[in-house]
Amino acid sequence: MAEKRYALGIDFGSLSGRALLVDVANGEEAGSAVYDYPHGFIEDRLPATGEKLPPDWTLQDPQDYLDVLANAVPQLLRETGVRPEQVIGIGVDFTACTVLPMLADGTPLCFLPEWRGEKHAYVKKWKHHAAQDQANRLNQLARERGESFLARYGGKISSEWLFPKLLQIVEEAPEVYDAMDRFIEATDWIVMQLTGVETRNACTAGYKAIWSKREGFPSPEFFAALHPKLADVIGTKLPRADEILPIGARAGVLTAAMAEVTGLVAGTPVAVGNVDAHVALPAVGVAESNRMLMIIGTSTCDIMLGAAGGAEVINVPGMCGVVEDGVLPGFPGYEAGQSCVGDHFDWFVRTCVPESYRAEARERGIGIHQLLREKVEGQKPGESGLLALDWWNGNRSVLVDADLTGLLLGQTLLTRPEEIYRALIEATAYGAREIIETFEASGVPVDELLATGGIAFKDPMMMQIYADVTRRPIRISAIEQTVAFGSAMFGAVAAGAERGGYDSIYDAIRVMPKLRDKAYVPIPEHSAVYDRLFAEYRVLHDYFGRGGNDVMKRLKALKLEAGGHG
Amino acid sequence: MAEKRYALGIDFGSLSGRALLVDVANGEEAGSAVYDYPHGFIEDRLPATGEKLPPDWTLQDPQDYLDVLANAVPQLLRETGVRPEQVIGIGVDFTACTVLPMLADGTPLCFLPEWRGEKHAYVKKWKHHAAQDQANRLNQLARERGESFLARYGGKISSEWLFPKLLQIVEEAPEVYDAMDRFIEATDWIVMQLTGVETRNACTAGYKAIWSKREGFPSPEFFAALHPKLADVIGTKLPRADEILPIGARAGVLTAAMAEVTGLVAGTPVAVGNVDAHVALPAVGVAESNRMLMIIGTSTCDIMLGAAGGAEVINVPGMCGVVEDGVLPGFPGYEAGQSCVGDHFDWFVRTCVPESYRAEARERGIGIHQLLREKVEGQKPGESGLLALDWWNGNRSVLVDADLTGLLLGQTLLTRPEEIYRALIEATAYGAREIIETFEASGVPVDELLATGGIAFKDPMMMQIYADVTRRPIRISAIEQTVAFGSAMFGAVAAGAERGGYDSIYDAIRVMPKLRDKAYVPIPEHSAVYDRLFAEYRVLHDYFGRGGNDVMKRLKALKLEAGGHG
Repeated sequence: MAEKRYALGIDFGSLSGRALLVDVANGEEAGSAVYDYPHGFIEDRLPATGEKLPPDWTLQDPQDYLDVLANAVPQLLRETGVRPEQVIGIGVDFTACTVLPMLADGTPLCFLPEWRGEKHAYVKKWKHHAAQDQANRLNQLARERGESFLARYGGKISSEWLFPKLLQIVEEAPEVYDAMDRFIEATDWIVMQLTGVETRNACTAGYKAIWSKREGFPSPEFFAALHPKLADVIGTKLPRADEILPIGARAGVLTAAMAEVTGLVAGTPVAVGNVDAHVALPAVGVAESNRMLMIIGTSTCDIMLGAAGGAEVINVPGMCGVVEDGVLPGFPGYEAGQSCVGDHFDWFVRTCVPESYRAEARERGIGIHQLLREKVEGQKPGESGLLALDWWNGNRSVLVDADLTGLLLGQTLLTRPEEIYRALIEATAYGAREIIETFEASGVPVDELLATGGIAFKDPMMMQIYADVTRRPIRISAIEQTVAFGSAMFGAVAAGAERGGYDSIYDAIRVMPKLRDKAYVPIPEHSAVYDRLFAEYRVLHDYFGRGGNDVMKRLKALKLEAGGHG
Repeated sequence: MAEKRYALGIDFGSLSGRALLVDVANGEEAGSAVYDYPHGFIEDRLPATGEKLPPDWTLQDPQDYLDVLANAVPQLLRETGVRPEQVIGIGVDFTACTVLPMLADGTPLCFLPEWRGEKHAYVKKWKHHAAQDQANRLNQLARERGESFLARYGGKISSEWLFPKLLQIVEEAPEVYDAMDRFIEATDWIVMQLTGVETRNACTAGYKAIWSKREGFPSPEFFAALHPKLADVIGTKLPRADEILPIGARAGVLTAAMAEVTGLVAGTPVAVGNVDAHVALPAVGVAESNRMLMIIGTSTCDIMLGAAGGAEVINVPGMCGVVEDGVLPGFPGYEAGQSCVGDHFDWFVRTCVPESYRAEARERGIGIHQLLREKVEGQKPGESGLLALDWWNGNRSVLVDADLTGLLLGQTLLTRPEEIYRALIEATAYGAREIIETFEASGVPVDELLATGGIAFKDPMMMQIYADVTRRPIRISAIEQTVAFGSAMFGAVAAGAERGGYDSIYDAIRVMPKLRDKAYVPIPEHSAVYDRLFAEYRVLHDYFGRGGNDVMKRLKALKLEAGGHG
């Protein structure tokens, strides 16, 4: 029997990195190792100087990512007994947009003594929200100039993305802008550390940096109008449009130096960088159009492939983005999102659960979420009389409006906490249906749902409600580390068939992923009631979200005026 | 120095009766005694038979009221040392509409062995809600016939009132209807027990039995159309329109038998019966038009006098009722109400307060309401970004719609429990302002607010919010037993000046009541913000309450369809 071959996936999350080894022949997981970032989020003070950071700043130290390579990978090899020679390829994914300024040789600016004390020299994490003003001006300019790219991003570029963050540096620390040779996504930066070669991937370029295969980057005129210093940004601080590599490509091979750090073999192929949510799609076995994956966590990210090889890409209102080859080669990849899902339920249990419920959960030795579910899972749809809008954290898709807020309606003096809890779950399901129906109304069918992420694994009541509300069967990933698994699949593709991997991601998809056998299937009587409730949701959604009554925005403005929290 | 003279007020509440002795010369309280009704509410089973009562039934046993006379009054005399001869007059008030069938001699039907086992023979309490169907048909008929009386009651007769309850007896127990000589409000019944004379008062006749000084009762044709048996109800089971006595009149004097029971002197004058909320108005010193008293408890009852001696009575939309001479002689008395005030806050602390808050309150030895107030009383208006509609128990005034439900809007992931608590308080203040503005828009000015009831005494934050929201100063009663005090004042009037009392309630008002020195005065900066918030409240109030979006009613219908609680 031939020796087993493994692919290594490394998932750089928000606060830790996880390495996972997967048997290339059958998708069996050999094991995984996690390493927490020593600096975590840098949000309060800059460690080098103690400088207090302004509101909404979130930085990281890129040394933490190197520490993941130096710790998690050797530990994984040790614990699994897999020999370095058995690891045939490496794939990585990262949170995005997570960006940093560097020198041409890959040295982060913040590693240099002269820039150690400058906050703009560090990694700006996806959740760095201090470039909202820059994003607003960028969007305003794009609208004024009638830039076609806006439609690919649901009409709005997020403050989380690359150009608002870069513009913030240009405006607030022009000397950092001048000193950087390149501005790079962390996923591409870590690939450069592994291979010694700078590459740029189509996923972050497309979803976060306004690049498209057909139209490239925005024009120099647009950038010049945004800021004179940015007129030549493409081709200097950022790559040329034709330098972007498709997802599934090989970036290079592991350097000798990095082989020493990781314990792997020099020359091991490495895939181009990728993004956490996007690598999950092949990891649940999707190689076709119109099957939507929901990655359900504190928020939900939806990933779906559109029709292959179309003459034109269909823009869908309120999406996060559509990028050709951005998820899998040959397809436009759609991303949509709900900004408040797990966060919603956590707010509820933190804020609204009475003492007696806590006591009951303790006595029975179960979690509070489980207790609430048990109290309400027998209820029929509509039985509580409650209806909520899932906007506690604004609305990403399809309204793209961070200033919307929550709503709960239908309370009586007999309303119980678990009924409110269930109403919040139902609200997120209505939000999902709103996204699905917007896709379909735009001519992009959504035939099937798949789900992964903590809540998808742990909450059968919620998954059944989602199936009932959306009137679609939902399949659940059988792989819990879906994201690291997806990166390992791309590692196997980087290796290629000659080394025992695969020549394309589609070959890997046929063999490696696994779904749970049991799907959640809509219960027709429930769906019939949910149709009526969703009709009510939609009326309120449009009334409060599309200008019928902008009370939420006015209350938010009044709150800021009164000095309330944002 | 002349011996002191006292008036006795007896307040028959929902679950107990309270007797209070007041010095007629200066309003000083000598003391009070409470007696709990032994049977309380009869809601589950009829004690005599064990028969299970249907949903929404609430009965009482009139023996309980007699027990109050036999226990609380002698105890009060004993404890205060007031001699029976010093008690110059007696006034009583009762919850209403609280009605019972009796024989001509005053014997309740349920005292007779042959009716002891019949539930319709007992007192139907105000909160008996099982005659909703009868109320709906009565309203429907009145609308069809264009009956003018509807406008005096905000467009709707409540299921709590006399005729729906009587119609329920006619339909469900016609033999009880046939067996009763008279159908009577408990307040008139207890006066009959004290005096041996049957009298009927203008307050309950007006507010609960569709009587008015100018138009009398509805016509025999109306009653015949409602039910053939009711064609001659006026003048048989009920008094003729001209038999109704004005408030402030003397009903009679204490019988020898009742003197023995109570320990008082036979021949002591007794005032005609009255209603708890309504006697509170003179007890806070109001003898003029356009000063609104809010009696704030689990719900709020508003009482105000309109312009004296007007050629016509102005109807105000959504009031509970307007009755000439119904509160004080010579004025139209307005009653309005909010169905969910203290109940609202109790629901919140029962349902939505986290364990850590309970622990903090315990540790500090304070109540949970006080803790919540302390956490939020420093907040500025608008600072939470929240807005609520105070409809957890439907809306009494001005929408008169029991099918409306609650709404909370503006939540974010940072919203704290105490902010929701405050938003509920503010919502009830907006509800109060809506009532006030509806009065004013109808041509009935509301110049000043007065408040009494538990919350008015205990919650300065709420009272300040009410002053800020309504832009009106609020004076608080200095007398905590406002209602029993008001009855004592009417007792002093029944005695008359020749016995040391007063010849009119207006003379008593000049001498006996007391208000707290400090008024709550609107803070202009707060009022300016609340004007903006109230404008938002009103838009939502009309959208959800006046047919813009009947989602609340549809959800309620769906809830009942699904088998949920009502």
